[in-house]
Amino acid sequence: MTTTSSSHADRFTPRPEDKFSFGLWTVGWEGVDVFGPASRAPLDPVESVRRLADIGAAAVTFHDDDLVPDDATRDHTLERFGKALADTGLRVEMVTTNLFGPPVFKEGALTANNRDVRRYAIAKVLRNIDLAASLGADTFVLWGGREGAEHGASKNVQTALARMAEAIDLFCAYSREQGYDLRFALEPKPNEPRGDILLPTIGHALAFIGALDHADMVGLNPEVGHEEMAGLNFAHGISQALWHDKLFHVDLNGQHGPRFDQDLRFGAGNLRGAFWTVDALLGGGGGRAYDGYVHFDFKPPRSEADGGVWDSARACMRNYLVLREKVQAFRADPEVAAALEAAEVPALDVPALAPGESLADLRAAAHDPAALALREVGMEALDQLAMEHLLGVR
Amino acid sequence: MTTTSSSHADRFTPRPEDKFSFGLWTVGWEGVDVFGPASRAPLDPVESVRRLADIGAAAVTFHDDDLVPDDATRDHTLERFGKALADTGLRVEMVTTNLFGPPVFKEGALTANNRDVRRYAIAKVLRNIDLAASLGADTFVLWGGREGAEHGASKNVQTALARMAEAIDLFCAYSREQGYDLRFALEPKPNEPRGDILLPTIGHALAFIGALDHADMVGLNPEVGHEEMAGLNFAHGISQALWHDKLFHVDLNGQHGPRFDQDLRFGAGNLRGAFWTVDALLGGGGGRAYDGYVHFDFKPPRSEADGGVWDSARACMRNYLVLREKVQAFRADPEVAAALEAAEVPALDVPALAPGESLADLRAAAHDPAALALREVGMEALDQLAMEHLLGVR
Amino acid sequence: MTTTSSSHADRFTPRPEDKFSFGLWTVGWEGVDVFGPASRAPLDPVESVRRLADIGAAAVTFHDDDLVPDDATRDHTLERFGKALADTGLRVEMVTTNLFGPPVFKEGALTANNRDVRRYAIAKVLRNIDLAASLGADTFVLWGGREGAEHGASKNVQTALARMAEAIDLFCAYSREQGYDLRFALEPKPNEPRGDILLPTIGHALAFIGALDHADMVGLNPEVGHEEMAGLNFAHGISQALWHDKLFHVDLNGQHGPRFDQDLRFGAGNLRGAFWTVDALLGGGGGRAYDGYVHFDFKPPRSEADGGVWDSARACMRNYLVLREKVQAFRADPEVAAALEAAEVPALDVPALAPGESLADLRAAAHDPAALALREVGMEALDQLAMEHLLGVR
Amino acid sequence: MTTTSSSHADRFTPRPEDKFSFGLWTVGWEGVDVFGPASRAPLDPVESVRRLADIGAAAVTFHDDDLVPDDATRDHTLERFGKALADTGLRVEMVTTNLFGPPVFKEGALTANNRDVRRYAIAKVLRNIDLAASLGADTFVLWGGREGAEHGASKNVQTALARMAEAIDLFCAYSREQGYDLRFALEPKPNEPRGDILLPTIGHALAFIGALDHADMVGLNPEVGHEEMAGLNFAHGISQALWHDKLFHVDLNGQHGPRFDQDLRFGAGNLRGAFWTVDALLGGGGGRAYDGYVHFDFKPPRSEADGGVWDSARACMRNYLVLREKVQAFRADPEVAAALEAAEVPALDVPALAPGESLADLRAAAHDPAALALREVGMEALDQLAMEHLLGVR
Repeated sequence: MTTTSSSHADRFTPRPEDKFSFGLWTVGWEGVDVFGPASRAPLDPVESVRRLADIGAAAVTFHDDDLVPDDATRDHTLERFGKALADTGLRVEMVTTNLFGPPVFKEGALTANNRDVRRYAIAKVLRNIDLAASLGADTFVLWGGREGAEHGASKNVQTALARMAEAIDLFCAYSREQGYDLRFALEPKPNEPRGDILLPTIGHALAFIGALDHADMVGLNPEVGHEEMAGLNFAHGISQALWHDKLFHVDLNGQHGPRFDQDLRFGAGNLRGAFWTVDALLGGGGGRAYDGYVHFDFKPPRSEADGGVWDSARACMRNYLVLREKVQAFRADPEVAAALEAAEVPALDVPALAPGESLADLRAAAHDPAALALREVGMEALDQLAMEHLLGVR
Repeated sequence: MTTTSSSHADRFTPRPEDKFSFGLWTVGWEGVDVFGPASRAPLDPVESVRRLADIGAAAVTFHDDDLVPDDATRDHTLERFGKALADTGLRVEMVTTNLFGPPVFKEGALTANNRDVRRYAIAKVLRNIDLAASLGADTFVLWGGREGAEHGASKNVQTALARMAEAIDLFCAYSREQGYDLRFALEPKPNEPRGDILLPTIGHALAFIGALDHADMVGLNPEVGHEEMAGLNFAHGISQALWHDKLFHVDLNGQHGPRFDQDLRFGAGNLRGAFWTVDALLGGGGGRAYDGYVHFDFKPPRSEADGGVWDSARACMRNYLVLREKVQAFRADPEVAAALEAAEVPALDVPALAPGESLADLRAAAHDPAALALREVGMEALDQLAMEHLLGVR
Repeated sequence: MTTTSSSHADRFTPRPEDKFSFGLWTVGWEGVDVFGPASRAPLDPVESVRRLADIGAAAVTFHDDDLVPDDATRDHTLERFGKALADTGLRVEMVTTNLFGPPVFKEGALTANNRDVRRYAIAKVLRNIDLAASLGADTFVLWGGREGAEHGASKNVQTALARMAEAIDLFCAYSREQGYDLRFALEPKPNEPRGDILLPTIGHALAFIGALDHADMVGLNPEVGHEEMAGLNFAHGISQALWHDKLFHVDLNGQHGPRFDQDLRFGAGNLRGAFWTVDALLGGGGGRAYDGYVHFDFKPPRSEADGGVWDSARACMRNYLVLREKVQAFRADPEVAAALEAAEVPALDVPALAPGESLADLRAAAHDPAALALREVGMEALDQLAMEHLLGVR
Repeated sequence: MTTTSSSHADRFTPRPEDKFSFGLWTVGWEGVDVFGPASRAPLDPVESVRRLADIGAAAVTFHDDDLVPDDATRDHTLERFGKALADTGLRVEMVTTNLFGPPVFKEGALTANNRDVRRYAIAKVLRNIDLAASLGADTFVLWGGREGAEHGASKNVQTALARMAEAIDLFCAYSREQGYDLRFALEPKPNEPRGDILLPTIGHALAFIGALDHADMVGLNPEVGHEEMAGLNFAHGISQALWHDKLFHVDLNGQHGPRFDQDLRFGAGNLRGAFWTVDALLGGGGGRAYDGYVHFDFKPPRSEADGGVWDSARACMRNYLVLREKVQAFRADPEVAAALEAAEVPALDVPALAPGESLADLRAAAHDPAALALREVGMEALDQLAMEHLLGVR
């Protein structure tokens, strides 16, 4: 079944210029979890490409193992996949490597204590970098889902960070040597499946990048749910990433705060957060905007069958478009402009120290904290305007 | 009342070389919270100094408003305070500024939208930098408790980060110009009292420092509870800070995961985490160790009266000393060394790529992921050894 | 300043029959928190009554200490307060007792270890029951904010529950003896200000009521934020309370998951949760509905001054009315009815065992789990319809 | 490998009278999670029985599908299993039914919207009740892992509770009719694998039981990690369950607060909580104690191979025995008795109202809240004594 609301073209119908992108592993998730086996049949990647194109996606992404898990069928699959891309006009904008599923990586991949595992992981990534480049991808994502620990002494964190830096420095150098036009994007996550994962948040990953040999080639692929699992504000997080000019890619989905990784469709979970996420991606009240693909990394609930899978995929894009329209209306609303002014938001653009002013001048200036303490900040009024744009009652 | 266990000198009696330090605001907390007024009388800072010395602290720290809230009594207080320091031998190792209590800072201080507030905040910090230098402090902490937002549009995060950078750059330049020997330490916190605070975790603050003019002068003052409020592993966090050489100071206390900021005495809350925190401070299994003051930032529960205040302060130090002894015994235990070897922890020191080896060599090497997947990792056994050291049953 | 959107009468203008009610302590909160003193001046309860009436509230509630903190002025205050009620037409629908602020209750009130404290707490409640009855209140709320512990051995939980039952049995018996027409409503909360509070969730309080002498007189006053601080679904919680016929009162506000108690205006925080909360109050897809006052227990952010206080109070009601309209439209939408049918929601009304059928019959019947495993559940499609009603794009 | 510390008999060696029990699914977990397939080979239940007996367990438990997933081999398996029990002296103390893994239950089992699914679930449970009775089990556990929702309208919670009550009433009636000597125990969990699960906490399940036809036959099987995922205090929770005389069974394991369900070995995660859990099971400072099996429901980390599986199982029991010894020493320590007295813990046993005293008497008695506010509560001192017993430094 499909929702009527999605079945006819309207202003919320995805267009190529919206740059929507989906991982093959999203619509292709079979529903295996800790408590039960697959509830859905495998989906042929070629089938996924065709159906993603049908619903309006512009691009597709994958882990090596999503597409080419098996060397015996690799060439044939790549040929079929390439043909599907050509037929549909979809492109591969990002590629990533499965360094978390195969049991060899049960204790980490690039930071496994076992050196042979690390070497195998590096080789697996390199092979996939070649594939990514051959398919014309822009971005190469690294999510270290098993890089972490459940036990205090089992992982020397300082050394593990050095090993991760070693690996990423090698990947960057390799890509540069090969003349590939790839940027790398790290995906932070605080926990699950490991008890504590290295580079648990946007901040930790940004800091880590500063210690790399080719820091310019490495940025972030933050995921809504991963930050919200730590109770962090995703819009704030990507705003800091933009401030550092490191928002290379993004994973949109939904989550209900600190708990297991829900991977809900975008919009579900924290809806107000989704509104501000879209606002932040568009540059919000100023500063850098995001100009990459709008990538969804969600899981259709295990309870859904094929129809539900595609209902949820469609809804990701539709919710993004609805929220984008609302964000734009909010930012264009003169009453909002007045409320922003009342909340002194634009005043933050002005440095504290005037041009030519010395600190001695600043210290000598009159300060009236008692009067300032009484000022109206007008933020509830401003926020209520945003709420009413979101709810569609203005 | 005092606990008998703390009342006689033993191997867990604090000594000056343990470098224990307390904020005046810890033992001096009167118990005001959102739901009730003070339950304890104010404590004279001079009294606090004398009693902290009595129980074995080596140093004291303060916010300007803890010590000199009032200009009329400032000189007299500083004179009395200085005498108490001289009498007891305590030193001031760190100073910080209250940029969160006074209502003028209700909407932020260094990142308030209102420019006059920001200017006043800068002046307040500068004055306190002078005081810190005059008292011989090493470290100047900045906690931005009100730098944040409850509302998406009320704070332009990118601009706010620029304003915070502006202020910290000014502080560093000023300190350098004055010839002060101060280092600045940022204290991250995810939320409370603001809905979402800027620089919410160790990672975000580390990343931010990389964008400062005088990044070498700025590091971190992470707090156990603040990271655990985001569900993050504190030992991992300070290990990353050490890896970046940015652990300038530390705030030890206790917390029960994501909830309000509990500020329990050190050891209470996540005890296993406290064990690994001490291990990480001592350099854990390798890498940098922390060599600064062991600073406690806790709140004696509001229910306690004067006796309970000092019981809890004593217990902070005692728990640290007990845990330190256990951590050292753990690291010195030959069976632990064998278990670390079995868990391949030392193998992580070896880079994946051998000296002189090329990536082509690595890729061409034989990989046997199926066999590696079956290996024992021995981490439960290792962790159980740590548990038994902690429990004192080895 | 006021938002234009709230300043003219429209279909979202509160009317008396909407039965909106506010605590005096909400608009009257002065902004004291753990990190700073009051940012707003005290508000005269009479002023609050007049202004609440102006914005459309139908009723007011209070703790004894909000209204009559001082015996010297008690009679005069009650006279002025009564006149304000008469003038405005507002009524007092609920009264509660402050058993958490005064330092005497620092270690609990009805379950304090100290027996004299418990006796004083009981006397304080009894006096306030008399006041509640004299003012014609329907409901008497008990929130045990300090009934709990930070330390494992400090509170014998089984005994504490017995003491709480003793107290509530006394209150019920007293009220019945006096011929008062009061029902009691317990308000659960997991933590803050105590480390762990007794009766932490809706469920725990419901179970406790079952052990009381006058269980019929005692129900619940659940608060949105309190349940969400435990990561629990508030709509599910009040639905279970309704199923047990125990939803005597409700506290609406907003929260961002497990963290400090934010007490945001209703709608802020978890907006999707607010939609389902209103739906559950209205009886959702079947079962009992709530027919009491719609009571807001929120705190205007400390940063706001007087204008912001009233902006936020107005927004609570407005958001409720907007959500109510949307919930009603959702439930009336034929496409939603079809989607509910597709999701087999109405089928849940049919018992598993047919009338007259035996368990042997049921066991002997054919079961085809393999076929059932493949069925479409249609829940993403249904949920997206709700989303689009909420967003106002249908 | 085994830890030396566990390899020789000592006072922490499990004995039959310790009544340790393990689920077959614990040591038998193959490591499948959302992010990767099995990392360990299946374990023959007969092998598990023999090895559990070797390490000192007294009993074993299972879901039907753990033991007899396949009708074709059912009789043969039961015969082999029965022989292993006889050979080892292990007994089956509890049996439960897998109502969450098979895809037919993807949208719930006893509360699935689809009636045929509910009927199949009931039949599956009934068959397993027969098996449980035939094996002499005392307790029949029901965990409704898929009974819940991700979507507000998809599940009518009031109706779902009615359906769950219908099913449990049928099970109780059936068991009684058959003359089985079984008690039923509900296992609450807040979320995972469903977004929100019905009966999310100990409290909700206790309340629900009060609405059943055969409430006397139904109690709880709470799990440490499940309550801690909601940030709740497990010792408090089971104390309330004991107060209601409903702690029929228990699942011990470890967890790090609100996040995914970690199922760590007992003692790992919240160690202080584990100490108070053992104290509560033993009756703590008074009230009912637990007298059932000490059942571990944990998962050896996916990274471990066979040796690690058994290291972790042994450690569960060892940690319990170590903590039990410490709890007993704590409760027997005269200094602890004095500290409890100082903290007025025994005073809580005394009702507020004296025998024969009227409420009027109580109200007329002198109350001195100002003096009481100043009292020492002595709880930090008491808690530090517990800490030092736990750490083994007394």
